[in-house]
Amino acid sequence: MSLDLSAIQGFAGNRLDRRGNDREDPALQARWRAAPDALHALFAGDQPLLKVQGDGLAGLLPAASAGGGGRESVFLGLMPDGRPVFATARDELPQGTAETEDGLVVGDLRALAAEGRLGEDVLGALAQAKSLLSWHRNHRFCARCGAETAQSPAGWRRDCAACGAQHFPRTDPVVIMLVRRGDACFLARQARFAPGVYSCLAGFVEPGETLEDAVRREVMEEAGLASGAVAYLCSQPWPFPSSLMIGCVADAAGGEVTLDLGELEDGRWFTRDEVALMLRGGHPAGLRAPPPLAIAHHLLRAFAEGRA
Amino acid sequence: MSLDLSAIQGFAGNRLDRRGNDREDPALQARWRAAPDALHALFAGDQPLLKVQGDGLAGLLPAASAGGGGRESVFLGLMPDGRPVFATARDELPQGTAETEDGLVVGDLRALAAEGRLGEDVLGALAQAKSLLSWHRNHRFCARCGAETAQSPAGWRRDCAACGAQHFPRTDPVVIMLVRRGDACFLARQARFAPGVYSCLAGFVEPGETLEDAVRREVMEEAGLASGAVAYLCSQPWPFPSSLMIGCVADAAGGEVTLDLGELEDGRWFTRDEVALMLRGGHPAGLRAPPPLAIAHHLLRAFAEGRA
Repeated sequence: MSLDLSAIQGFAGNRLDRRGNDREDPALQARWRAAPDALHALFAGDQPLLKVQGDGLAGLLPAASAGGGGRESVFLGLMPDGRPVFATARDELPQGTAETEDGLVVGDLRALAAEGRLGEDVLGALAQAKSLLSWHRNHRFCARCGAETAQSPAGWRRDCAACGAQHFPRTDPVVIMLVRRGDACFLARQARFAPGVYSCLAGFVEPGETLEDAVRREVMEEAGLASGAVAYLCSQPWPFPSSLMIGCVADAAGGEVTLDLGELEDGRWFTRDEVALMLRGGHPAGLRAPPPLAIAHHLLRAFAEGRA
Repeated sequence: MSLDLSAIQGFAGNRLDRRGNDREDPALQARWRAAPDALHALFAGDQPLLKVQGDGLAGLLPAASAGGGGRESVFLGLMPDGRPVFATARDELPQGTAETEDGLVVGDLRALAAEGRLGEDVLGALAQAKSLLSWHRNHRFCARCGAETAQSPAGWRRDCAACGAQHFPRTDPVVIMLVRRGDACFLARQARFAPGVYSCLAGFVEPGETLEDAVRREVMEEAGLASGAVAYLCSQPWPFPSSLMIGCVADAAGGEVTLDLGELEDGRWFTRDEVALMLRGGHPAGLRAPPPLAIAHHLLRAFAEGRA
């Protein structure tokens, strides 16, 4: 199934058939919702709730675990075997809670993805769930008129009865780019990064620009470098809270680096060989690439292996 | 400057230096706002206001035309000559108004782009302005708590004093794809299209999917066709209200077409030669490609010319 570099990114393994055309069919939605074999991706706030099963973890749970409701629930799609899957919000838990009263483990989606105890398909469904539930939780009111809104039957829209506005889930495109010049690439680190980690520059696409312009603007803003050609490489859903990471390669023109010190604490050029050492944990100064969960890891791997 | 196929798309000619790092500098923002040579992209609702100048139209106007204010105003960036440019909302006008009391012409951004009376750089700035002002107009309240929000000094954020939420402008990624099989591509029409126009399939990217998955999902939903490889071609800002069009080429597998008749009124395979006739207005049945303002036009041109 690995048709492209996007398919191997973290959170990209979602195999649900979203059945988008059936979201406006209330009878079908009700039938799926009542199905005895329906599954739920449960969240308390931004934290997934999981069940320990032998050595493993179950991330999609039966309706009995979903709780009474009253909170949002979104139809995510059908499993390959036809079972309907929902994202369902339970009440938020006090900070630091490790286990719910009914014995579910409180997880962290990033840690779960790094650990590898859940299948890629389940991680993908949890990512979809997290983004949608986070959107609902932060959009209970109408941004146009301030009234309370209500979710549509399938949960892919919120409607305002007061002013008639319809609100749809939001996905924020972000460009992340390998900035290349000859045999070197430019990497930088933010103060919040783990020690020794250097990564690609990135930033949100803004209204009124192409992907390529967004890449060139960000490279200029963060490193003071002009860019020429920009090529798309791969993309990744990033549910923190709801980004679409768009991985590109940018050819930087000559000139000196001017770091945006408001955002970055360091940045410099790295050779292909140095990047290869960072990827396999053998850099003499202990510098490291981001983990495989991050699309930057795969941009750097493509560079180190001469594929970008 | 035509570094890529994205650079020749409609609304892609924006040359403003956005100075994103200076948006949080209130003193600099105030200075630019008070600059005697500042320019304004003025809108009444979704309609740009323009000044007739000889045979042409001016789309960026001096502060005197901006009106008293009270409505939103966003810092768009600096012109190549350093003049600051703002997007500024004036009061909405009664339906059908053709000219304001102070002699400005009420325009339509799509028609202006098609007419070619404004430069590509001005059209790009107006597109940026329209998306941002539309976002402000529809986000005067906090989606999290329902309270009124206020714009930040540069207008790139809205802050909620009641709950502390910060809200940022939204850009909606849309995939639009040339679906290809051998020497033919699949095109369809919606009932709202101009007579005879057939175009590419398209749809919003959803939370939790890669670009490639979004393309494959949309092609399956709208035409019932499975897709293999997906390649990125070009992108376009589309300010209706604030989309990022991401143009791709998808290789469709075999199988019969099943049209989504809820969305499409017709769809079929077109040969390369037929697409070439549609592009130059010589199709025997009068069928036509979308106009050059649409990214679909350029996807179809690439296909007809064997570049995709």
